[in-house]
Amino acid sequence: MAILGPVTDLLVRVHLLLRAAGSTIATAESLTGGRLAVALTDVPGGSESYLGGVVAYATELKQSFLGVDEELVEQHGVVSPECAKAMASGVRAVTGATYGLATTGVAGPGEQEGKPPGTVFVGIAGPGILEAVALELTGTRGQIQERTTREAFQALEAVLRREETPLG
Amino acid sequence: MAILGPVTDLLVRVHLLLRAAGSTIATAESLTGGRLAVALTDVPGGSESYLGGVVAYATELKQSFLGVDEELVEQHGVVSPECAKAMASGVRAVTGATYGLATTGVAGPGEQEGKPPGTVFVGIAGPGILEAVALELTGTRGQIQERTTREAFQALEAVLRREETPLG
Repeated sequence: MAILGPVTDLLVRVHLLLRAAGSTIATAESLTGGRLAVALTDVPGGSESYLGGVVAYATELKQSFLGVDEELVEQHGVVSPECAKAMASGVRAVTGATYGLATTGVAGPGEQEGKPPGTVFVGIAGPGILEAVALELTGTRGQIQERTTREAFQALEAVLRREETPLG
Repeated sequence: MAILGPVTDLLVRVHLLLRAAGSTIATAESLTGGRLAVALTDVPGGSESYLGGVVAYATELKQSFLGVDEELVEQHGVVSPECAKAMASGVRAVTGATYGLATTGVAGPGEQEGKPPGTVFVGIAGPGILEAVALELTGTRGQIQERTTREAFQALEAVLRREETPLG
């Protein structure tokens, strides 16, 4: 059960960017099933920037924990940019974190909502920020989960770097 | 970022015991930071028995997500059997799962609440069940997190096997 992975430079960079801005983060995970949380709690001193989060594997938990609107799920499905954004926004609101980072999609091996494995959406919410990134990943179930984790932190880093340099 | 670990026989046994009883499980994690969730979502077909859960890294999230009483935390601390039981009971109530499995304790390297690294409590809540298991673990931060994960599932398996054989 060697779940623990090495801390990558990416995670350390994200942690340092958050800390430098006095910001915090919370996570809302579907297909990654806790992998974002494990990565963030692997970073030395990670508790300074990471508050915690939710693994909303069952659809009902997306609603009860994160306040994702039932109508939104009925209209767009859980494998959608709308759901990714609502999860990110929801976990940010519930935890009071500066940023919310969310994943939803199809890890496989089977389809979900008629969408093939690898169809993934990452949601990022922050002050004045609400974005979804669409990914089309390939690989085994495990590889898709791992690649989603990496892509989610890359997307977050891009947002944090953009915020670091005010344009105004 | 190879967070994904191999599915162990222990996890498969737990999943099959839950499925055979038509039971579900939810997790509430502090020091394991998502490792219980990752392990449960590694099991093929795991979504049949695993609903999801909470990573309550910051103490406030133990209260907001899990309804852990502020007075309980003030009186006993978060590194306590009382908090482990309240987290397990809380996540069970919020998610509607048959069982709640919780971890709280000191992963290290530093002390927390005056308790040394390796002081860990596992909470299990179920129908008529509310128990805490005290652990004294050794090792690095990563080893303590990994050992807690294994011990938590071993404790859960023991409860599930006991429930499987009615004594009455």
